[in-house]
Amino acid sequence: MALSTMIYNHLPTSQPIIMNKLSKIHGLAHQQVVLDQPKTKTSNRVSSLTESLSHLLHLHLETPPRTNTRQINWNSYGEEKLSTPTTSPKEVIAQNWRDMHASSNWDNLLDPLHPWLRREIIKYGEFAQATYDAFDFDSHSEYCGSCRYNRHKLFETLGLSRNGYKVCKYIYAMSHVNMPQWLERSKLVDTWSKDSNWMGYVAVSDDEETRRIGRRDIVVAWRGTVAPTEWYEDLQWKLEPYGHGDAKVEHGFHSIYTSKNDTTRYNKSSASEQVIKEVTRLVELYREKGEDVSLTITGHSLGGALAILNAYEAASTIPNLPVSVISFGAPRVGNIAFRDELHQLGVKTFRVVTKQDVVPWMPGPVYTHVGAELKLDVHSSPYLKRGLNWPGFHSLETYLHLVDGFVSTTSTFREDARRDVALVNKACDMLVDELRIPHCWYQLANKGLVCNAHGRWVKPKRDPEDIPSPHMQENINVPALEARMQTQDVHKPL
Amino acid sequence: MALSTMIYNHLPTSQPIIMNKLSKIHGLAHQQVVLDQPKTKTSNRVSSLTESLSHLLHLHLETPPRTNTRQINWNSYGEEKLSTPTTSPKEVIAQNWRDMHASSNWDNLLDPLHPWLRREIIKYGEFAQATYDAFDFDSHSEYCGSCRYNRHKLFETLGLSRNGYKVCKYIYAMSHVNMPQWLERSKLVDTWSKDSNWMGYVAVSDDEETRRIGRRDIVVAWRGTVAPTEWYEDLQWKLEPYGHGDAKVEHGFHSIYTSKNDTTRYNKSSASEQVIKEVTRLVELYREKGEDVSLTITGHSLGGALAILNAYEAASTIPNLPVSVISFGAPRVGNIAFRDELHQLGVKTFRVVTKQDVVPWMPGPVYTHVGAELKLDVHSSPYLKRGLNWPGFHSLETYLHLVDGFVSTTSTFREDARRDVALVNKACDMLVDELRIPHCWYQLANKGLVCNAHGRWVKPKRDPEDIPSPHMQENINVPALEARMQTQDVHKPL
Repeated sequence: MALSTMIYNHLPTSQPIIMNKLSKIHGLAHQQVVLDQPKTKTSNRVSSLTESLSHLLHLHLETPPRTNTRQINWNSYGEEKLSTPTTSPKEVIAQNWRDMHASSNWDNLLDPLHPWLRREIIKYGEFAQATYDAFDFDSHSEYCGSCRYNRHKLFETLGLSRNGYKVCKYIYAMSHVNMPQWLERSKLVDTWSKDSNWMGYVAVSDDEETRRIGRRDIVVAWRGTVAPTEWYEDLQWKLEPYGHGDAKVEHGFHSIYTSKNDTTRYNKSSASEQVIKEVTRLVELYREKGEDVSLTITGHSLGGALAILNAYEAASTIPNLPVSVISFGAPRVGNIAFRDELHQLGVKTFRVVTKQDVVPWMPGPVYTHVGAELKLDVHSSPYLKRGLNWPGFHSLETYLHLVDGFVSTTSTFREDARRDVALVNKACDMLVDELRIPHCWYQLANKGLVCNAHGRWVKPKRDPEDIPSPHMQENINVPALEARMQTQDVHKPL
Repeated sequence: MALSTMIYNHLPTSQPIIMNKLSKIHGLAHQQVVLDQPKTKTSNRVSSLTESLSHLLHLHLETPPRTNTRQINWNSYGEEKLSTPTTSPKEVIAQNWRDMHASSNWDNLLDPLHPWLRREIIKYGEFAQATYDAFDFDSHSEYCGSCRYNRHKLFETLGLSRNGYKVCKYIYAMSHVNMPQWLERSKLVDTWSKDSNWMGYVAVSDDEETRRIGRRDIVVAWRGTVAPTEWYEDLQWKLEPYGHGDAKVEHGFHSIYTSKNDTTRYNKSSASEQVIKEVTRLVELYREKGEDVSLTITGHSLGGALAILNAYEAASTIPNLPVSVISFGAPRVGNIAFRDELHQLGVKTFRVVTKQDVVPWMPGPVYTHVGAELKLDVHSSPYLKRGLNWPGFHSLETYLHLVDGFVSTTSTFREDARRDVALVNKACDMLVDELRIPHCWYQLANKGLVCNAHGRWVKPKRDPEDIPSPHMQENINVPALEARMQTQDVHKPL
């Protein structure tokens, strides 16, 4: 179903409100749509989507003038900035962890944003970002749709070891609902899996991080989709009963979270079963040691929706477990009854959204958002371009950049924000030209081809330890692996 | 001017003939146009061009069935092929060099194609390909439009040292004619040059290669353009007097070859002056040593046109110098009088064209091709896709693949062709899926960004020795450079 039709279906009574809201999030009316993106399959569809939307709502979206933003002097920008560390020193938050983990719904921590909380949000956002950065999107690879690295070296390879967590388990998902744009599939006949995609992972804080944050923190990070607007177009947007009573959630999200099939290699159990089993095991393990344990579930886009379903189930299943969700650019998931049940279960939800991103408006007013919201504005950053750029507005790296720069709703972009601005352009084109950062720069040399001893360009075989295997997952030879990693430069993401 | 308009202008009397020819080169009629290319700015324009063309000529281009091609068994293809060297052993051709260099217009060497000549054609084609592979296309780089490597390490870096030539001089060109699609320009304010592009180089055979080929061979390689059809659209297609008598050549080619301006850094002398001065110096140098000397000029697309102008001037200027041109996918350059003058000067021209490439048909019948022609057929290769693919048909790597596989006009693709097939997809999407080679794979890791010691992704500064300088060109510290190169893995092109 096209997004336009989809919105139209929900319009009868609420049309003026939606129009008003959409015109608010995109600034004032009656100017031309500017599309900065290079034409790709995705941006073509996004562009046609944009057109239908603006046509349907009789909107002409515009770029507001640069006001209320800090001005950068590009002439003096450069050397000094580039030699500043990208992170601030870590604070010990052990005494306050329940506040950070939302015992009080983050009251008084959001505006202005508490610096400790900002740091934690970015930490979880980076865990979600890892699910994109390590994903094999190469449709010519037999491992398309899997993680490019095994779980023991994921964080090391992506430079995330500094966060102090270890990955315990990978999660795979399939869907019984036909959603052609969802699954990343290899073009080849012989592949690691025909039905499943790597959908995220379970990780747990190490001893040092546990001391710093005051409890053993289990993280579940859910992957979203690269081209979310395409994907949302294909959803059927129908509600499905979930849990008890009148709670209902979106059919497609539910299908990805719960589908399984005995004939598959990776989804003999559903994503739901995989993750709940592993979280339960970890909770029991650390509770036996007398530790406080928390569960923090994160995800971007579709991943944020799965995080909510996962939180509901974990809170229902595991007694007395503090469960919080930190989502980025996530769509609405269920109806009001579902929201109420989540509240009753004590699930704390922290939603980071940008004013310009359309995904959090989906699937429309029948669905309800839950929890606290941190609303960011793309226009607050002096580093970002002003043109309409739907993939850029929705990109998780854009979100992390804006969180890093957010001080309060009345302040300009944080002057001492340190996160590397270049990351924003990894997979989109959002940075101003003055920064000289190419768009969509996150890529392999020669798309992974290497020149062999005979002078031929070939796709190297994956390291055996990185080949997904449903049986081997738990039994990798860790000492051998670690020895190998010490001899390699594994800090380079690509 | 659009290609369609351009062709239309030349159609009045010859329309039926052209229609006939075009329907021949593209196979039979009345089927749908298939566009395999990913949508890029270029392919969008190419696609609209294609549409206007086929619409104008009432053509429906089709993919002919796979006949007269060797069938590949993809199941057994692989390991063995990938461990075969990419080149055949070199033969000593010293006794026959004048035949190879066209003393008799390559009579009796073309059909079937003499294996020695095939090898020579590929050698020169690789010299032309180097002008693309080493070119800095990055509009965010201050060196956009220059060569990424200095002349001392160009061949080494691209893996072309095995051909046994050394680069003596780089050539820079500008144009007084306004051709917006021609010049590659940096988006930055401070750049190495605002007017000029690196346009090729002069090289000379080393002692060993000189012995093998029977004379000291001077090569001039001219760069073409990446998006030729765009570029040709913008040409004004007007003839300009050149040389003596009635000879006329295309205005735009002439401008690039001869333009200069005292206020520029790289074109105080024109491309013509730079190249003739260097070739003259080399001819005198080696003639003084009593050696036979030849001049072979090569280029693809626009580069093939410049090669012809260059050959005309060299033959006019330097007495008794055997001059030959080996061009790939080159357009027509001048009128009949120009062709006749070239013949009188003894310039031998060898044009490699593919039946499917439109560029050699340009600018239309007022212009005339010169010399011998080797006509290749994209459909002869079992490795190439069948869909309509204008950039792919015109790509120099496609040409080199087809030369490598050409035996005779009545034979199928050469079974023992060894050139690496993967190279075809460097910058286009021509290879069949069975080969599992990604399209447009020739790319830098992370578009050249590297992670610095502080964890920030930055564009590294160019090595000082690779920064173009109009004054330094001749004075690079070669021993220091060579010492440095021995410590580096310079064989990897990217």
